[in-house]
Amino acid sequence: MSTIGFDIGGTNIAAGLIDDDGNLIRKQSYPFPTDKDFNKVLSVCSDLVAYLESGSSTPIDKIGVAVPGSIDSSNSIVLNAYNLGFDHTPLKAAMESLLHKHVYLINDADAAILAEHRIGSLKGCSTAAMITLGTGLGGALIINGKLYRGGRNNGTEPGHMILHNGGRSCTCGNKGCAETYCSATRLAKDGKAYGWKTPKDVIDAAKDGDVNAVPIVNAYIDDIASYLASLINLLDPERIAIGGGVSAAGEFLIAPIREITNQRSFFHDPTDIVVATAGNDAGIYGAAFVVD
Amino acid sequence: MSTIGFDIGGTNIAAGLIDDDGNLIRKQSYPFPTDKDFNKVLSVCSDLVAYLESGSSTPIDKIGVAVPGSIDSSNSIVLNAYNLGFDHTPLKAAMESLLHKHVYLINDADAAILAEHRIGSLKGCSTAAMITLGTGLGGALIINGKLYRGGRNNGTEPGHMILHNGGRSCTCGNKGCAETYCSATRLAKDGKAYGWKTPKDVIDAAKDGDVNAVPIVNAYIDDIASYLASLINLLDPERIAIGGGVSAAGEFLIAPIREITNQRSFFHDPTDIVVATAGNDAGIYGAAFVVD
Repeated sequence: MSTIGFDIGGTNIAAGLIDDDGNLIRKQSYPFPTDKDFNKVLSVCSDLVAYLESGSSTPIDKIGVAVPGSIDSSNSIVLNAYNLGFDHTPLKAAMESLLHKHVYLINDADAAILAEHRIGSLKGCSTAAMITLGTGLGGALIINGKLYRGGRNNGTEPGHMILHNGGRSCTCGNKGCAETYCSATRLAKDGKAYGWKTPKDVIDAAKDGDVNAVPIVNAYIDDIASYLASLINLLDPERIAIGGGVSAAGEFLIAPIREITNQRSFFHDPTDIVVATAGNDAGIYGAAFVVD
Repeated sequence: MSTIGFDIGGTNIAAGLIDDDGNLIRKQSYPFPTDKDFNKVLSVCSDLVAYLESGSSTPIDKIGVAVPGSIDSSNSIVLNAYNLGFDHTPLKAAMESLLHKHVYLINDADAAILAEHRIGSLKGCSTAAMITLGTGLGGALIINGKLYRGGRNNGTEPGHMILHNGGRSCTCGNKGCAETYCSATRLAKDGKAYGWKTPKDVIDAAKDGDVNAVPIVNAYIDDIASYLASLINLLDPERIAIGGGVSAAGEFLIAPIREITNQRSFFHDPTDIVVATAGNDAGIYGAAFVVD
């Protein structure tokens, strides 16, 4: 039976109709309400369901919803998704009562790895990690062929593993979290003193051999490599997929990350480190796949 | 059916007869051959089996063997157990051909967590970690109620997660591994300048409020707490057991470690952090339990 996957972000609410074979049949996106009014959010979702359902030959009774934030251990409440103005928001119950369909919530990083695992770079892996390097450092795990939801169903927060204990302050309150060193934001921060504004500016300058940009990017690569080596030495995954804005730099960053990470791996066989391939609709796919 | 568990260490080879209910019926230990001659090791093992078998009312056809080192992904070869002089040693085949019994190899940290999980502090946990703070930092994981053997069956090396990237040199060749900061050895190293010889000397001095020992122990606690917080933020375990020499200091160390770790945890519900309870025979028990 077809399902609908929602990818709710701070800018847009995107949704797609996914058929039984995992193909995206139809999709649409509307802007996220600028005032973050929850009733307006629900109304947009309702409109999207009506639009997508009109294109389905079979009735739809299950909807998966990916949100950028933590979900409670009963998978009903969005504990925090600050970009959406969600704080202990009973999203599942609200959507179910409005739409009269079963609703399944999933964190956006978990949705991304489900998409990679089913249709992207992690296809066929029994144990794998996906790391998204963007504004923050998000990530998720596949263990024993399934999405790992945490031992107490709290999920996983791999961006808050500590890479430089006592180092730079993280938004979570700790010092030295991997997110602070491996997110794209770090490149922008380190590049600011030299007049660069975006992570891409710094990477482009390093590509041109700029003497200030090269050490910034090298330090960044070094931190990512040690971070991935930590994941490998703990979990021995078959493959790690890198997603997010930074992965757009492709082999310029990934090739040295791959090489240094595997030098720092305790195990002899190198771990496959690849760029994520599920693309911009990964959130929609992953949200639909959580329904299974 | 009863089984025999071996705990092979650089000082002693200990073995015990474990009955169907998981009770240790009889045990014995002999010194590990000082010249590390492999044939002598096998001969000691054979003597121990003969002694233990004579105390069993039923025949024994399975033996579990715990070794302090890495085991290959087919669970037959001890890749390295330098304290034993083992280097790519085909221990399983050698013991099977000598003893005419099925032999199962297991890393000592994995044996320790199996013992904790079945008869000790991790009983009933679905997802848990055990960390042994001694000469090094060993550890193992229970995920989904089972020993986690790594995604590629390489096991897990939690001591080589990186806690201070670029920091102190580790024996593995990396800089800043958790082992370098959280093992008992670190306390001895930091205490040397003040004339202390053992980790216990430093801890005892800190207990007495010594102005040099207190900051050493506080830095040590801080590193362990950040290390455990990393494990929690990645895996969300129900419980973490701490074993090894350092755990003998009990609540003096464990209480602040527990408090600071949970301050640094991303999740609201505190993770249970306890001292391992399976005791000195944990290796024997765990080795016997791997047979199941």
